[in-house]
Amino acid sequence: MSPTEDEITGWFAEQRQLPRATYPIGIGDDMAQIALSDGVSVLITTDMLLDGTHFDLRTATLHQVGYKSMAASLSDCAAMATIPLAAVAAVGLPRDFGERRLKELHEGILSAGDKYDCPLVGGDITAWQNDGPFVICVSMLSKPGNSPPVRRNGARVGDAVCVTGSLGGSGRGRHLSFEPRVREALKMTGLVTLNAMMDLSDGLSSDLNRICHQSGVGALIDAASIPISEDAKLERGPLWAAINEGEDFELLFTLGMEQWDRLRRVWDDPVPITKIGIIVDTRQMQIRMPDGQIKDLEPHGYEHLQRGT
Amino acid sequence: MSPTEDEITGWFAEQRQLPRATYPIGIGDDMAQIALSDGVSVLITTDMLLDGTHFDLRTATLHQVGYKSMAASLSDCAAMATIPLAAVAAVGLPRDFGERRLKELHEGILSAGDKYDCPLVGGDITAWQNDGPFVICVSMLSKPGNSPPVRRNGARVGDAVCVTGSLGGSGRGRHLSFEPRVREALKMTGLVTLNAMMDLSDGLSSDLNRICHQSGVGALIDAASIPISEDAKLERGPLWAAINEGEDFELLFTLGMEQWDRLRRVWDDPVPITKIGIIVDTRQMQIRMPDGQIKDLEPHGYEHLQRGT
Repeated sequence: MSPTEDEITGWFAEQRQLPRATYPIGIGDDMAQIALSDGVSVLITTDMLLDGTHFDLRTATLHQVGYKSMAASLSDCAAMATIPLAAVAAVGLPRDFGERRLKELHEGILSAGDKYDCPLVGGDITAWQNDGPFVICVSMLSKPGNSPPVRRNGARVGDAVCVTGSLGGSGRGRHLSFEPRVREALKMTGLVTLNAMMDLSDGLSSDLNRICHQSGVGALIDAASIPISEDAKLERGPLWAAINEGEDFELLFTLGMEQWDRLRRVWDDPVPITKIGIIVDTRQMQIRMPDGQIKDLEPHGYEHLQRGT
Repeated sequence: MSPTEDEITGWFAEQRQLPRATYPIGIGDDMAQIALSDGVSVLITTDMLLDGTHFDLRTATLHQVGYKSMAASLSDCAAMATIPLAAVAAVGLPRDFGERRLKELHEGILSAGDKYDCPLVGGDITAWQNDGPFVICVSMLSKPGNSPPVRRNGARVGDAVCVTGSLGGSGRGRHLSFEPRVREALKMTGLVTLNAMMDLSDGLSSDLNRICHQSGVGALIDAASIPISEDAKLERGPLWAAINEGEDFELLFTLGMEQWDRLRRVWDDPVPITKIGIIVDTRQMQIRMPDGQIKDLEPHGYEHLQRGT
């Protein structure tokens, strides 16, 4: 069996020991952090979106693709509760792509950037010599908010496991128009201390597994409390969809129980936050099904290198 | 006739007025600059390399491709005389790409990064759902050296027009193994004041045209003084190759004549620097041919959107 994306990424991370003073956060989080001087630091993320994989240009507009490519990186900024600063976008174009389509893409990029004060400051336009499919790669810079960037590895036994919004069924269209949770993340870290956070890009079961693995803990999820999206309710298995489908771009986070109690009392945002489980010391993920039965929860989300396992 | 990459990039740059205090350098230079606080700033560049366009995986190794993808961005850092800080790499993989090939690519990336203290701090691995060609996008951060970043728009009438190294014939192999001129750029700005600079990625005639256009000046190039590479001498038209072929990744720069006199006197580097012409006030590019005849110099370098015009 070939290795997963996480295993390869882990191997990459081990090849070089980065000096922590200059590179406080390296490979394996939603963004990497680079210290510049006097406590000033910047974070960076990069996301490549491929036609046929992350969108389908037979049905999606280029405006939607531009929006999504920026929103995916903005969601990474949110995942660490950082403030978006600027983005660059590189595109690989099919033959005869044309100016009109480039401008439509550009408008989509700006429509997302404008919302979050994250301008497009540069890019690269290139074309497949012998024709090829459309590809876009957005890289984005952010800076820490009032609290340090929230990482994946900070979950503690006893923490509440929570999500923003509702999950599943993103493929029905929401994956092209979702709202990255930039404001919600910064609002939360302004109110309480979060121990771990990431954005849900590959599905709850896969992404929670990352937090558990990196934090050296396990989790017990309560199926009945998972907020299932209206889109997921249209699927044959709404709960399965909410747990395993990718591209929700909601936030998955953990925090001490007393912090959770405080947060839910003061939370007045239209975007709901929901406790869906707790962090446990077993190093395993389990889920209490609606009938009370406890089952192992396997990471079944989207796996880029093994498609649909 | 469809617009050139420069025309489209120019149109993009006009769509939003970026506040200069936060974004001192935006679209249109080799890197964009973002001010963080208290005089601390960071620069960013992004480069997408496509199989069949920027390399050919039927003949190039993945180690070479990894090296080139980093070196191209390092060359952008050099182009503004800035210090490389960190890189992220995103890849789009053909079906069944495999772990071994990913690791070979990774080694190539590190081989370039190690040379210039520019670690890989993050990335994104994704695969074409319905198969597709290999694509890699490297984004890189740098910081200013002891002098402000050297831009494209600072050339002044009377400046010497100069290049590092020798030009042309890069396609014979050098485009996969070139040495980005990071050290040379920083060494030059430590010795003298450069007025304009960029790296030669699309060919001298195209890239000089960019400096002229952005600086509102013209140039008169002396064909006899252009350093023609050994590779270009193997081509049918060595001078044409040196002027119009892309991917030399040498530096093209202008500086006041007295600064040039000082620089060439003290320059003891193994990488040669050569004066090839002067900046003039005509807003046109011309070239004095070896027979003394003066001809208009048209930008005939690599045009990504119109291939080979």
